[in-house]
Amino acid sequence: MTAPTPITLDHCLALDADDPLAGFRDRFHLPDGVIYLDGNSLGPLPAAVRTRLERVVEAEWGRDLITSWNVHDWIGLPARVGDKIARLVGAAPGSVVCADSTSVNLFKALAAALDLRPDRRVILSDSGNFPTDLYVAQGLVRLLDRGHELRLVEPEGVADALTDDVAVLMLTQVDYRTGRLHHMADLTRRAHGAGAVTLWDLSHSAGALPVDLAGAGADLAVGCGYKYLNGGPGAPAFLYVAPRLQDAVRPPLSGWMGHEAPFAFDLDYRPAGGIGRNLCGTPPVLGMTALDAALDVILDADMAQIRAKSQALCALFIDLVEQECRGHGFTLASPADPDARGSQVSFRHAQGYPVMAALIASGVIGDFRAPDLVRFGFTPLYLTFSDVWDAVAVLRGIMETRAWDAPEYHRRAAVT
Amino acid sequence: MTAPTPITLDHCLALDADDPLAGFRDRFHLPDGVIYLDGNSLGPLPAAVRTRLERVVEAEWGRDLITSWNVHDWIGLPARVGDKIARLVGAAPGSVVCADSTSVNLFKALAAALDLRPDRRVILSDSGNFPTDLYVAQGLVRLLDRGHELRLVEPEGVADALTDDVAVLMLTQVDYRTGRLHHMADLTRRAHGAGAVTLWDLSHSAGALPVDLAGAGADLAVGCGYKYLNGGPGAPAFLYVAPRLQDAVRPPLSGWMGHEAPFAFDLDYRPAGGIGRNLCGTPPVLGMTALDAALDVILDADMAQIRAKSQALCALFIDLVEQECRGHGFTLASPADPDARGSQVSFRHAQGYPVMAALIASGVIGDFRAPDLVRFGFTPLYLTFSDVWDAVAVLRGIMETRAWDAPEYHRRAAVT
Repeated sequence: MTAPTPITLDHCLALDADDPLAGFRDRFHLPDGVIYLDGNSLGPLPAAVRTRLERVVEAEWGRDLITSWNVHDWIGLPARVGDKIARLVGAAPGSVVCADSTSVNLFKALAAALDLRPDRRVILSDSGNFPTDLYVAQGLVRLLDRGHELRLVEPEGVADALTDDVAVLMLTQVDYRTGRLHHMADLTRRAHGAGAVTLWDLSHSAGALPVDLAGAGADLAVGCGYKYLNGGPGAPAFLYVAPRLQDAVRPPLSGWMGHEAPFAFDLDYRPAGGIGRNLCGTPPVLGMTALDAALDVILDADMAQIRAKSQALCALFIDLVEQECRGHGFTLASPADPDARGSQVSFRHAQGYPVMAALIASGVIGDFRAPDLVRFGFTPLYLTFSDVWDAVAVLRGIMETRAWDAPEYHRRAAVT
Repeated sequence: MTAPTPITLDHCLALDADDPLAGFRDRFHLPDGVIYLDGNSLGPLPAAVRTRLERVVEAEWGRDLITSWNVHDWIGLPARVGDKIARLVGAAPGSVVCADSTSVNLFKALAAALDLRPDRRVILSDSGNFPTDLYVAQGLVRLLDRGHELRLVEPEGVADALTDDVAVLMLTQVDYRTGRLHHMADLTRRAHGAGAVTLWDLSHSAGALPVDLAGAGADLAVGCGYKYLNGGPGAPAFLYVAPRLQDAVRPPLSGWMGHEAPFAFDLDYRPAGGIGRNLCGTPPVLGMTALDAALDVILDADMAQIRAKSQALCALFIDLVEQECRGHGFTLASPADPDARGSQVSFRHAQGYPVMAALIASGVIGDFRAPDLVRFGFTPLYLTFSDVWDAVAVLRGIMETRAWDAPEYHRRAAVT
C-alpha cells in the first residue's frame, strides 16, 4: 500500500485492517491511555504470563514445594527455555541455555572465547556496543592480567580492524542508541578469515528481527530476556555456543548446575557435556517461567511478518515525524535504510530529555539516551499503525505548545 | 519443660501451646497433608509473597511498565533487599546486596578475596563445603592460571591448616549434609592471625540461626535466598563485603549495575562506591520482589526465639527417632550437641534413598543426600512440635512395615 501525500490517519487505519499480526495485541496486557514505544527496553506483560505465574507460585512452589524440581521439571527449565529462544535466533536445539543476566553470560562467553585463542590478546568491539558489554570485558581483562586489550573502533570501522591479533570480535548486533544493524554473516565471515572468534550480543535483535546464528556461522552469542522477548523486568538472559565448540568451552563460572552430575555432590568439577556446562547456579524459576510463557506468544508469530511490520512501523514513524514535526529540531539518528536498522528509531534533539519526559507524561512512552537521543521502539505484536499516528500527534502537540519546557520535565530521574 | 520418659504426643502439644512463634505458621501457605521438613532446601510460600507478586506483575510491570524502575524503585531493590538480609546476618546497612545466584556471588567474592592477597596462592576450604563452592573455586583457579591451589581439609582440621600461605579461608558455616556448625568468630580470628581473608557461605545459616558477620570480623560472605529466607525457587542470592574493604574490592564481574553512573552510558567502567559495585546485570525484579516480601515475615520474628525453637525441634526429633525407631538402622550423622548444629538433622541409613522416597510419598518431606543421608530441616516459623511427633510416627510405620522396599521408592529422580 503506497502512502498518500500527506500521510493520513485513514491510511494508518487501512494498514491496521490489513495487518496479519493484528490478533496478537489481545495477548498482551496494555494499560489504557498508553502508547508503549519502549518494548525494546522492557516488553509488556503477556496475558499468559500472569496465568502461568499464578500457577507456578500457587500449585508448583506453594503446593508441590521441593518436589517441583522433578514433577514440574524445574530442573529442565534452562534447556527448555533455551530451546525456545534457539528457534528465534536460528540456533539448533541444544545450543542455547537460559541463565543469569546478559552481563554474566557475556563474561562467560568472552572468557570462553579468549580461551579458544590463547595466543591472541585483542578483544575487538565498537563504540556503539552497549556499555555493560564493554565494562564486563574491561573487568575480565583486569582479572586475567595477561595483557589483553579491549580495542574499540567506530561501528563503521569494524571490518577493517579485523587484524590477525584479534582473538574475539565482540559486537552487539543492533546499536542500543540508533538501531544501526551490523551484518552478522558478513562480519562473522571476515572475523573467521582473520582467525578470530565471534561473540554476538543479540539483546536488541532476538525477537525483533530474523537472526540466523547457525547460518552466519557465529561462535558465541548472548542476549536479553526482558526486551523483545517480553519475559518481564530483569528476566533471565541466554547464552549460545555453536555445537562444534560446546565441548571445547571451559566455563569460567563453573557452578553445580553445569556439572556433569550436580546431585552426586562430588568434590571435583566435571563439566556437563554440551551447552549445559554453561549453567552456574540454581535457575531463577519464577523469572524463567515468566519468560517461558512469554516466548510462546512470539513463537506463534511468523518472524518474517514481524520484520516486515517492524520496518513498516519504523518507516511510518520517520515519515510522520518529518511531516508533522518539521522545524521542531528533530534529526534522524537511525539509519534511513530500513534494512540497516533494527526495530527502533531514534532522533537527536537538543531538548531530548524534557521532550521525552513530556511525551511519557502524555502517555507516549519511549526513552531517552544521553546526550540527546529520544528513542522509540516498534514492536509489531502489540502496536498498530494508528498508534504511530497518535504518538506523532502527541509529539506535535508537545512541540507546538512547548509543553516540554515545564520545570518538572527537566528533573532527571534515577533511571533514564 | 522437661520431656517425660517416654516422650508423648501430649508433651509435644504442650510445647506447641507454649510456643511464642506459633502465630507465624498462618503467614505461610502450607499444603494439607504435608509435614514439610525441607525448608532448608526450598522454603515454602509466604502468603504475603503471593499478594506482592500479583501487585508487581499487574500494577508495576503490567500497568506502569518501564516507569517502574523509578516510580516503584525497582532500581533500588538490590540495596533494599540487601539491607533486610543484613539485619539477619549481623551486617551494617549498606554492606549486603541482593544479586545473582550464590555460585555467581561466590565467584565475585573469591576473586575479590584473592585480589586482596596477591602474594598468596592457597584457597583453604573443607570437604564439607557445598560442592558448588568448590567447583566455582576450581574454575576461578583455572581461569586465573597463576598457580592458585584449592586446598581441602576435613572440617575438624581447618584451624590447624591456617598456614601463612593461605590467601582465603572459604567455608560454608553450616554443613549441608550434617548441619555441623563452624565457629565463625573463632575461625575468622585465627584466619586473620594467619593473614588470610575469610569468605563465609551462609546458605544454611542465614535465617536459621543468629549470625554476626560484623561481630566476627568476617571479610566477605555470600548466601542463598531460597532456603531459610523463603524467597522462592531460585531466588536471588546475596553478597556481603565488610565496610572496611568495600572500596578495595575490584569486581571481576564488572557490569553496568555496579557502575558509578549506569545511566550515563560511558564507555569506561568506574566502580560505584560501596557495596553497589558488586552488582553486575539487571536485577531479577520478580524473584527479588518475592524475596523482599518473604523477608518481612522473618524480620518480624525474634532470632533468639527462632534459634531456641530450632534447637528444641531438632532435639525432639533426635530423641523421638531414638525412642520410636530404635533398631531400624538409623545412625545420627549430625552433631549431638545442639550448639554445634545448624537447623537440620541427618541420619545415615543403608536404605536412605528408598526410606526418604517412602516418607515423601506419605507426606513427610525431607531429602536425601548421597551416599546414605536422610536429611530433615526444622524451621521454627511454620513447624510445630506435634509435626515432629507426627513425622516420626510416619517414619516408624514405614520402617515397621518395610513400606520403603516397594520398587517405586528405589527409582532415582533427576533431582534428589
